Amino acid sequence: MFRPQIKVLDCTIRDGGLINKWQFSDETVKKVFHALSAAGVDYMEIGYKSSEKYFSRDEHGAWKFCTMEDIKRIVGDIETPMKLSAMADIGRIDSEDIAPKKDCILDMIRVACYAKEIDKAIALAHECLDKGYEVTINLMAVSKILEKDLDEALDDLSKSDVPVIYLVDSFGALYSEQIHFLAKKYLEALSGKELGIHTHNNQQLAFANTIEAIICGVNRLDASLYGMGRGAGNCPMELLLSFLKNPKFDIRPLIEVIQEIFIPMKADIEWGYHIPYLVTGVLNEHPRSAMKIMDSKTLPDLRRFYEDLKDGSQLD
Amino acid sequence: MFRPQIKVLDCTIRDGGLINKWQFSDETVKKVFHALSAAGVDYMEIGYKSSEKYFSRDEHGAWKFCTMEDIKRIVGDIETPMKLSAMADIGRIDSEDIAPKKDCILDMIRVACYAKEIDKAIALAHECLDKGYEVTINLMAVSKILEKDLDEALDDLSKSDVPVIYLVDSFGALYSEQIHFLAKKYLEALSGKELGIHTHNNQQLAFANTIEAIICGVNRLDASLYGMGRGAGNCPMELLLSFLKNPKFDIRPLIEVIQEIFIPMKADIEWGYHIPYLVTGVLNEHPRSAMKIMDSKTLPDLRRFYEDLKDGSQLD
Repeated sequence: MFRPQIKVLDCTIRDGGLINKWQFSDETVKKVFHALSAAGVDYMEIGYKSSEKYFSRDEHGAWKFCTMEDIKRIVGDIETPMKLSAMADIGRIDSEDIAPKKDCILDMIRVACYAKEIDKAIALAHECLDKGYEVTINLMAVSKILEKDLDEALDDLSKSDVPVIYLVDSFGALYSEQIHFLAKKYLEALSGKELGIHTHNNQQLAFANTIEAIICGVNRLDASLYGMGRGAGNCPMELLLSFLKNPKFDIRPLIEVIQEIFIPMKADIEWGYHIPYLVTGVLNEHPRSAMKIMDSKTLPDLRRFYEDLKDGSQLD
Repeated sequence: MFRPQIKVLDCTIRDGGLINKWQFSDETVKKVFHALSAAGVDYMEIGYKSSEKYFSRDEHGAWKFCTMEDIKRIVGDIETPMKLSAMADIGRIDSEDIAPKKDCILDMIRVACYAKEIDKAIALAHECLDKGYEVTINLMAVSKILEKDLDEALDDLSKSDVPVIYLVDSFGALYSEQIHFLAKKYLEALSGKELGIHTHNNQQLAFANTIEAIICGVNRLDASLYGMGRGAGNCPMELLLSFLKNPKFDIRPLIEVIQEIFIPMKADIEWGYHIPYLVTGVLNEHPRSAMKIMDSKTLPDLRRFYEDLKDGSQLD
């Protein structure tokens, strides 16, 4: 029997945009929108809300900004129960850049932050709640912080009005037993709130760790088409919907759009499991050094890359 | 603290050979042998023992046969604690094709069978035991048989002298909760025997399901370099050794041989996660139809492939 509380969010354009600077054509984003809607996905995260004071449209595609005009070009007058979300990174947006809900097509703002920014994140989240949005906080990089600091952040979150908190494995470093431990910790600390999970696939565990989180009681699940996302990518949506038992989900429109758009795109912009991403995942490091290698197109000595990063991380 | 009973077997040449008809050069097999030995891997499965009465060397490489001469060319006089294994498929070998251990470099024979062949498998396994080998039985395709038939096969195995039995997810169809259920069933039915796990990666769960099996108490683990194996491939050895805590394991020689041999090879002969393999995995079907698609190099309509196979499997 399926769990009706489970809601699935697609982050293909938002997280995938981290590898192509959100340079998706409107046609691509439209096709993704229609496929996700037909597949029964609950939320589409269409990009970031970022301030044009800090970032330029010369360098970044529309989905770094997600203005009303950008989104309207995609959505038109289409009726769908699928909701739209955008992510706001602390430090990359000011609250005046977020319009009241009544003037905006977005349904949800997800505020992403590191533990040390938790107060700023809660303040922004409260403003977004006041403006009428659904709101979540996504606490990033928790595989790398002291448990004491995590506990303090969870305590702050427990006292906030934010109804949904995400467990995020930013570096693809966590194993199922660690996901289990953290999910149980979050559930205990955040009684009454809904939990979400966002994973990365450095160790081919993004889907498996999402399943582990579901088993623990996590109900908000992030995934992306063909796993497209930064570095090793995310939990593949087509796998996740195949696993979930809710009869409203249908993977056939996803297979179609993956064949048309994402299989060719992956031959051009690489994401997914590769040895450099394994290395940063295993060493619990940010994937930036691995992304640099993958961008360079000719692989350096990977054994040395591992040894150097290991030495570096041991000196941290 | 690591579990000293855990033993890791590399099946790169044996299972990977299913996608290139074992056409590995001696140089490649030597490099794999040296890298695995340096990494602390416990067993290298160097291929199949098949009868030259049934298969031809014109069509298949040496590792379909694994004669003494074949293996000697690779091993030479090298001293290593790593043991050598070969797999014997019921119906593809006669007992006279397996020499007594004293005349053979192989340490272990793994007998692979379907549940309906369990009596033949036990008979061959007992002959191999009598000839002086370590012996296992790998019971394939258990995701597709009635529980009653599985229970009978396990009962037969429990009465046999075969000391190691493998749980095999031939179709990459199983989720962690099913692995958990089956591992517990095997452990209960096969009290006093050691259990093994062999997974396929159709749903990106090969590594995660291996971890789940470890958690359940399974101690014999199959993996392959860069996940090379039939269809979607197997649990990647480099991920598995990174997870295991035994200080004898060292992934650096694996990274080296993967970069030199398997990254270029994967650009030429494809294995790993692809939509056709997802489809057969999700539908709990043999990967042969997906392999045919991947061989053809131009993808057919994948949505239709899914729909047709789904219709077919519902009529089974």
